[in-house]
Amino acid sequence: MKIAVIGASGYTGLELLRLVVRHPRLELVAATSEQRAGQTVGAAFPALAGLVDLVFERNDPGALVGRIDLAFAALPHAASAPTVAALHKAGIPVVDLSADFRLRDPAVYEAAYGDHGAPALFGQAVYGLPERYRRELAGARLVAAPGCYPTSVLLPLLPFLDRGWLETGSLWVDSKSGVSGAGRKLEADYLFAELDGNCRAYKPGGEHRHVPEMEQEAGLAAGAPVRISFVPHLLPTIRGIVTTIHARPTRPVDTAAARALLREAYDPEPFVRLLPEGTLPSLAAVRGSNFCDVAAVADPRTGSLLLFSALDNLVKGAGGQAVQCVNAMQGWPETEGLLEAPLVP
Amino acid sequence: MKIAVIGASGYTGLELLRLVVRHPRLELVAATSEQRAGQTVGAAFPALAGLVDLVFERNDPGALVGRIDLAFAALPHAASAPTVAALHKAGIPVVDLSADFRLRDPAVYEAAYGDHGAPALFGQAVYGLPERYRRELAGARLVAAPGCYPTSVLLPLLPFLDRGWLETGSLWVDSKSGVSGAGRKLEADYLFAELDGNCRAYKPGGEHRHVPEMEQEAGLAAGAPVRISFVPHLLPTIRGIVTTIHARPTRPVDTAAARALLREAYDPEPFVRLLPEGTLPSLAAVRGSNFCDVAAVADPRTGSLLLFSALDNLVKGAGGQAVQCVNAMQGWPETEGLLEAPLVP
Amino acid sequence: MKIAVIGASGYTGLELLRLVVRHPRLELVAATSEQRAGQTVGAAFPALAGLVDLVFERNDPGALVGRIDLAFAALPHAASAPTVAALHKAGIPVVDLSADFRLRDPAVYEAAYGDHGAPALFGQAVYGLPERYRRELAGARLVAAPGCYPTSVLLPLLPFLDRGWLETGSLWVDSKSGVSGAGRKLEADYLFAELDGNCRAYKPGGEHRHVPEMEQEAGLAAGAPVRISFVPHLLPTIRGIVTTIHARPTRPVDTAAARALLREAYDPEPFVRLLPEGTLPSLAAVRGSNFCDVAAVADPRTGSLLLFSALDNLVKGAGGQAVQCVNAMQGWPETEGLLEAPLVP
Amino acid sequence: MKIAVIGASGYTGLELLRLVVRHPRLELVAATSEQRAGQTVGAAFPALAGLVDLVFERNDPGALVGRIDLAFAALPHAASAPTVAALHKAGIPVVDLSADFRLRDPAVYEAAYGDHGAPALFGQAVYGLPERYRRELAGARLVAAPGCYPTSVLLPLLPFLDRGWLETGSLWVDSKSGVSGAGRKLEADYLFAELDGNCRAYKPGGEHRHVPEMEQEAGLAAGAPVRISFVPHLLPTIRGIVTTIHARPTRPVDTAAARALLREAYDPEPFVRLLPEGTLPSLAAVRGSNFCDVAAVADPRTGSLLLFSALDNLVKGAGGQAVQCVNAMQGWPETEGLLEAPLVP
Repeated sequence: MKIAVIGASGYTGLELLRLVVRHPRLELVAATSEQRAGQTVGAAFPALAGLVDLVFERNDPGALVGRIDLAFAALPHAASAPTVAALHKAGIPVVDLSADFRLRDPAVYEAAYGDHGAPALFGQAVYGLPERYRRELAGARLVAAPGCYPTSVLLPLLPFLDRGWLETGSLWVDSKSGVSGAGRKLEADYLFAELDGNCRAYKPGGEHRHVPEMEQEAGLAAGAPVRISFVPHLLPTIRGIVTTIHARPTRPVDTAAARALLREAYDPEPFVRLLPEGTLPSLAAVRGSNFCDVAAVADPRTGSLLLFSALDNLVKGAGGQAVQCVNAMQGWPETEGLLEAPLVP
Repeated sequence: MKIAVIGASGYTGLELLRLVVRHPRLELVAATSEQRAGQTVGAAFPALAGLVDLVFERNDPGALVGRIDLAFAALPHAASAPTVAALHKAGIPVVDLSADFRLRDPAVYEAAYGDHGAPALFGQAVYGLPERYRRELAGARLVAAPGCYPTSVLLPLLPFLDRGWLETGSLWVDSKSGVSGAGRKLEADYLFAELDGNCRAYKPGGEHRHVPEMEQEAGLAAGAPVRISFVPHLLPTIRGIVTTIHARPTRPVDTAAARALLREAYDPEPFVRLLPEGTLPSLAAVRGSNFCDVAAVADPRTGSLLLFSALDNLVKGAGGQAVQCVNAMQGWPETEGLLEAPLVP
Repeated sequence: MKIAVIGASGYTGLELLRLVVRHPRLELVAATSEQRAGQTVGAAFPALAGLVDLVFERNDPGALVGRIDLAFAALPHAASAPTVAALHKAGIPVVDLSADFRLRDPAVYEAAYGDHGAPALFGQAVYGLPERYRRELAGARLVAAPGCYPTSVLLPLLPFLDRGWLETGSLWVDSKSGVSGAGRKLEADYLFAELDGNCRAYKPGGEHRHVPEMEQEAGLAAGAPVRISFVPHLLPTIRGIVTTIHARPTRPVDTAAARALLREAYDPEPFVRLLPEGTLPSLAAVRGSNFCDVAAVADPRTGSLLLFSALDNLVKGAGGQAVQCVNAMQGWPETEGLLEAPLVP
Repeated sequence: MKIAVIGASGYTGLELLRLVVRHPRLELVAATSEQRAGQTVGAAFPALAGLVDLVFERNDPGALVGRIDLAFAALPHAASAPTVAALHKAGIPVVDLSADFRLRDPAVYEAAYGDHGAPALFGQAVYGLPERYRRELAGARLVAAPGCYPTSVLLPLLPFLDRGWLETGSLWVDSKSGVSGAGRKLEADYLFAELDGNCRAYKPGGEHRHVPEMEQEAGLAAGAPVRISFVPHLLPTIRGIVTTIHARPTRPVDTAAARALLREAYDPEPFVRLLPEGTLPSLAAVRGSNFCDVAAVADPRTGSLLLFSALDNLVKGAGGQAVQCVNAMQGWPETEGLLEAPLVP
């Protein structure tokens, strides 16, 4: 299957190149980058020398038609929609990794991101969380790969919301993310000298644009509106998100019951691992892999239920999940090209 | 004023050496360490060569009597109490940095730490949070320096509990700490190869032994029992704690009101800084200093109040706070020897 | 092909598990660990949950006979030799990753490492640097995978020594290594709080035990004894070695000539990449991969020739090279199961 | 003594603010920054809130006349010279931390840096290495604080060159620096996601602009031209330089003799510490301090002499050394305001 990665020189794009190279059924035939157009991939990124023998092209959807069977779009939001629309119109299936097609309510999109670049296509994508939308992904032509924070929040949370076990107005979520989630932005905050040895919260409460996305999917599971008090933190790591959720059960839930529910939900899933009791998710255990590790602990003292997750934001939070979507779209085993051991240590 | 640091070769002890060296009114005359006894401080720790011209002694309180005017005890809990008691009996004022004298209820101590090593002295220490107990510290003979996590939780929280602004049963606290908080333990979890690029929660809910301490002081402020759902996380940094508190107000509180309350509480305080609106605390901004930075943000969407803090666990969370206590005990300016710029970058 | 990894719970052993899992022609049937015997691999190392469905066994060569076609031995030196000898005697091909079979002169071994655990087998292994000993590896029964530092020094150096282009008495080598090269040792020096933000030289001159190994192979290339002044440094990274060699040419060598020689040597090699002129090797560009990147720059001002390399010490410096050896032993493509993109960023 | 820091918002400038705040005889009255002009120091850098109560001014030398007794200039090279010249003309002593006044030969300056911004003043500064130019610093009006790499190379090297103990054509120097040495540049190479876990050489041989500076001072000590083959490396640390020098003695030198020479040179020096035999310099042991640690090891196998140093590039390599110069200029104890323990851990 011939593949293009559009916006291939950002961190998400590079990760897609890495993952496509490893996939036995995907053949990379084009990589686009406005910034790097004309350079060989290997010269621009010595890490990929000897692995990817392509020259970066400009982001021109028209030039891809007839050459590819599927495209990954890894452009910034707003910039992505018109490119995706052009490919879609040309009949090319697209997995879009931007935020442009994740939301279902145009007003919510506009409030968070501004004008949409392809309003006619809005709302037509499958939300690319295979653990929830496997059936819809089969044969889909347009897939919106979820945001990294929403993936880390939804996977531990949804089984409980499905059953109505949690108060939907008492969800406190603390996430901590490595800096690659912000992309390769030349901002002072992301300099090594600013971030090493540092950690801080940012955009607390409802400020982060991933909040509407997680509330949308949480609400669908709960069958009622859900409000999440979300505080993201920036970690001095390159990769990874660890999320801790403080929730209030609607009925008595002990650790065993919470774990049983997660086991039931995720035992069949190849990429969501319920850790043994007493072990909590850690970034190191998922580094470079498509796993999302989850855990649950009830705190009888405070009557709260604590949920935990860890994933690699560039893999299960972006490129790996996008590849998993393609596997699901094509009816291949979902683990195809993806079942790799984390880089430990 | 002649000073001994007891247990001077651990991370807290080393930090005390650093701070005593800088203090214009303190003279270091003894440093004890069972492990390093007989070695010069400079040979054991090249960083201190040329600064501390002492040989580590064994931990023998009797050998200190007559030589010192005050002792910092930086021993592990349980080991600390008998040493502290011996010094106290000999009339030497002690600032104890272990957990042995922080709690007021012996049953709570025993449940968390086991048998106490000097039960007769239990409950007689002043809790060394100068921002709360300044008056009690003046002339005190026994001071229990607070734990690092409790300091980071209590400073942003107490002003709100004082006023009854928060539901005492809905306090969710996420803290993230650098690894020096665990001391120089030879455990695999603390190896560089395990921790770099890593982050994970541990001892969630009420498992961490600092929970009873923070609940005790929070309860005193609230005038009622307080339950805190506390999740500490291990950060890939050496120093620092950032804490995020999700609380539920008992009455409408917007960001301005919350900030006004913090301003009122901390404007007179030299070491607690309310950051400008829009800026959240970060580890880098307090590194190596005795500051605790705080902030508050109301989230109208969820009706929650978010409180934030950052401090250096070895300074405001341990050695610096202990020195601040000595300043308060002696009636010196509390900033004496402590008002230093953070190490930035 | 059925495989055992002996000593599978150290960093090298874990890396072998990761690499064997990915290899299409290798099947992991046993993993031994004295420390972890009886635990499932997934419980001991959550990173490997869902990937390796084995229980750690004790290190008993006899128990492996009849079950495996080849063994990787990842034990410490001295401990390795008897195990390797037992497997060898039982007719099982072994790739040994310890130092026990790398040297050719028993006196040199003894001076560096003490008594040898299987003297009868000493000197009978093929030195597992496929770029040099490909022919000898084909069908070999005993292979000594090279040390991590020697690999990083020899790959850029040997082509020049082969031609007699360098003075053999003027080789100054500075290497910098991530801490995983030391294994998972519980030593204070390897704690995060000691190593983060830190860097230092250690065992300078000829003190490091990898020096005799690199001098042996360098001497074979030069056809004369070679003396290397070697200074290793510890880096605050988990993985990777960067090496800088200052050499004095025996004849005028400009950058173009030096690069031409490296190109000639390594163009046919899948895992040694000559970087474009102006680009120097970096750890990030090889992280998690089996590549060794090399470069050469002549400095006309001082008449010296500067050679550079970077590799991942756990892959091309250990487990990856061992797998490459197996590929060469079996006559498979050497890239089989190994041609993976580095983890960037 | 009233002080201005010019260019106070870069990393060197910030470090000067930190150091001036601690200095008992210096009073900070002005901090300039083109980028931050009009902002309070505390708003721009929360770390300094509560410590520096100033508003950043524009870089206007005229506006400083009459208000200050001395200026630190922490501007980029070329930009610095005209500002320094204006202050000098107005009779204000200046310690310049740029490269503009370090060199003695205008042709060498021009080759490395291009046109000089104040040619009339070129060559009139004292080179601010107090260990060498203490006498010249007394009462000086213009001081050029040395570069960070040159300080780390010259301190271990000069005593040997003074005595003629080393071949001046066989000096191989490997330095490794934290990223703050590059300033707060918004370049992709300095992003956390690019540098964490990474290390690489750059500008090898004679390419780095600090080479002429170190050769100049080395040549003055040797009484003959000196050529240094210099390879700097970028470390994943914020602060610090470790330097390893491979030299060839002109006469037999064992470790004891080399150490004796360093002891003789540096015993009287408060900021240069000869470490105990067997201990090599490390970044952690000097972090945040004005120390430069040195060591020497002879390698009889190769006949080379190995010299080592470690310093904090922002302190002994920049701001601290500049303050030490002021102490020397004023005839104060050189340790005034500077004798602080490193931040360990």
